[in-house]
Amino acid sequence: FMAFFIRIRGFFLKAWMIGVDDPRKFVHCIKAGMALTLVSLFYYMRPLYEGVGGNAMWAVMTVVVVLENTVGATIYKCLNRVFATSLAGFLALGVHWVASQPGQRFEPIITGLVVFLLASAATFSRFIPTIKARFDYGCLIFILTFSIVSISGYRVEQLFDVAHQRMATIIIGTSLVTIVTMFISPIWAGQELHTLIIRNMDKIANSLDGSMDLYFGQNKEETDPDKQLANKSLGYRCVLGSKASEESFANFARWEPAHGRFSFKHPWQQYLKIGAAIRSCAYCIEALNGCINSENQAPDPVKKHLKEACERVSSTCSSITRELAKTIQTATRSAAVDLLAKEMSAAVQELQNSLQSLPDALKQEESEDCEAKSGGIVPLMEVIPAATFASLLIEIASRVDIAV
Amino acid sequence: FMAFFIRIRGFFLKAWMIGVDDPRKFVHCIKAGMALTLVSLFYYMRPLYEGVGGNAMWAVMTVVVVLENTVGATIYKCLNRVFATSLAGFLALGVHWVASQPGQRFEPIITGLVVFLLASAATFSRFIPTIKARFDYGCLIFILTFSIVSISGYRVEQLFDVAHQRMATIIIGTSLVTIVTMFISPIWAGQELHTLIIRNMDKIANSLDGSMDLYFGQNKEETDPDKQLANKSLGYRCVLGSKASEESFANFARWEPAHGRFSFKHPWQQYLKIGAAIRSCAYCIEALNGCINSENQAPDPVKKHLKEACERVSSTCSSITRELAKTIQTATRSAAVDLLAKEMSAAVQELQNSLQSLPDALKQEESEDCEAKSGGIVPLMEVIPAATFASLLIEIASRVDIAV
Repeated sequence: FMAFFIRIRGFFLKAWMIGVDDPRKFVHCIKAGMALTLVSLFYYMRPLYEGVGGNAMWAVMTVVVVLENTVGATIYKCLNRVFATSLAGFLALGVHWVASQPGQRFEPIITGLVVFLLASAATFSRFIPTIKARFDYGCLIFILTFSIVSISGYRVEQLFDVAHQRMATIIIGTSLVTIVTMFISPIWAGQELHTLIIRNMDKIANSLDGSMDLYFGQNKEETDPDKQLANKSLGYRCVLGSKASEESFANFARWEPAHGRFSFKHPWQQYLKIGAAIRSCAYCIEALNGCINSENQAPDPVKKHLKEACERVSSTCSSITRELAKTIQTATRSAAVDLLAKEMSAAVQELQNSLQSLPDALKQEESEDCEAKSGGIVPLMEVIPAATFASLLIEIASRVDIAV
Repeated sequence: FMAFFIRIRGFFLKAWMIGVDDPRKFVHCIKAGMALTLVSLFYYMRPLYEGVGGNAMWAVMTVVVVLENTVGATIYKCLNRVFATSLAGFLALGVHWVASQPGQRFEPIITGLVVFLLASAATFSRFIPTIKARFDYGCLIFILTFSIVSISGYRVEQLFDVAHQRMATIIIGTSLVTIVTMFISPIWAGQELHTLIIRNMDKIANSLDGSMDLYFGQNKEETDPDKQLANKSLGYRCVLGSKASEESFANFARWEPAHGRFSFKHPWQQYLKIGAAIRSCAYCIEALNGCINSENQAPDPVKKHLKEACERVSSTCSSITRELAKTIQTATRSAAVDLLAKEMSAAVQELQNSLQSLPDALKQEESEDCEAKSGGIVPLMEVIPAATFASLLIEIASRVDIAV
């Protein structure tokens, strides 16, 4: 029993830590509670209740379903819900009218057929990528409203009233939710995307530095800072898997109105391109780390010979990445990037030179450690693709600068 | 106007191609239409309609919201919906009873407070990863039902009837959907995960072969098969981004009953581990491809010297991967894997030997192409991490064999 209690306590502690790590999650929960309590006022205030009839429930439902963490996601759902509901409502009324013409007997058959066709078509449209990205929720709501209205059309005589009341309650719910998400400590998807990209760039830069230090400082005794380094150099791992969240943020950011420094038509797609470039850097660092952990290592003289050039390449790489992150953050073109880019290509050239001179340097040593040597060359050469990726990054960043 | 027409036509053609590529999507749409038409029978058949009262709408709603592409996702939503609704219904009735004790006046205040607290708590629980993975939809439905029932408790006198009817309609809807998804050409999430992993392994093997051919055959004239090779060698790109879909499949597969060769407690988590191992192979191939496309290439003599050993390593690698894919497919331990593993480590050893003998071989050539040489060594050495990853794969696969 005690073990069970401890497990429960551990679970709550972990849950609490999640909230402490990101206090906005607490705020979001309070916002959700508030929105629901506000909408329940419609039930308690008699005049409002009479206005929308017994359908006030739809307002509650809308609030629960539509409220999302970021503003973009909420607006996306609100707009989709409102438009899909009205479109489906009108269509259903039209179908109801047409179906009622030939007489009471055929109505169920015609309605059933139309529901079958439209539901299939709308379900299929959810498989099309462009529609899925923007109107997935709308398609769902369309099927829902259309089938409810057109099926119940056979029973409920006051169809217009139902459609009208449902629209009114949905609009009440969505506007309430929109106000709550937008004005009470809003979380903008665009802002999130922005900080995510910048944080990822910083992580890449730190990883690059960390793995260099780890590789060339490996032969010293293992100390605590060494472990910190290892942790630092693993920051790139988050970048490897961040594609999905980047895409969903970019998707929702499109729906957001102008906020902060971001205009309505902010080029969110560019962020995805930058994200892809960062991710390809992360793949390189992954390969680099494979070499650090591999069994056959270069002998010390080889490392010593290449250490300086390597470290210069990696440090220019990481400082370029940091500079680019700053560029994106401030959205101003900085001259330092071009300067650093030149410095980096010089460093790469230097590294190639020292690779070229490596055999001569090694002739002074004994030549039997040749096998291990090749293990040492690898990480160096892998810095070069990293460098080319970084220069790719520069290109894209300059494009962003133009776009901003 | 013509341009508009052509664009529309192109859109429909593209949509059609999506369906033709995977005919199960068409089947799913027909299933959706059918389920909706079936549920609408409740409206048209008078005895059934009288049974559940005017709340038949909830059945329609359940069908629309709960029907998903895979069986696992549908069952996940069904179970979550049924349990969350009943739990929330009972809780709301209890709260209603407690709140009604002190008298009519305090009821709205108490109910409002409880709604606020519970909605916040449930919203927060959706942020906790373990709950999000399994009960995300349940939490949403819990908030929804609880607030609707407890708020409308103030108005509707026959609260028990509402709760009871809602339960009945939801159970009708979910059982209908479960039957339709499970018995009409079902798409099992587990099966999807299984084929996805196997397909990814094949893709990795093909990419490895393709890039080897591309690298060593590069100096020939560019022909059409060359382009095919390039396409083939890019298959690993899909593997890089398949993490999200693997995880969601594994998540839904957990909910599925025994089907085909998969028991209820099939170790789906193992698939995720295999997927991660495959993905780390894909990262390596990404680095390898960076070398193929890089500007500084090894001179022909170096390539020629290393070609054989390299090709042996890569071919054993890829045949091991294919063999492992077959092992997973048939779920039988094959002796060939161990054999191939031995062969592979022999090949790796041979490659290291030929790297060792490279300087001697090069002494016969002029030594001035040293810089370019290093460009040649890189891809070779990157095969070695690939090989180590493959051996990692073997370990995991053997673990799966034990688990199966």
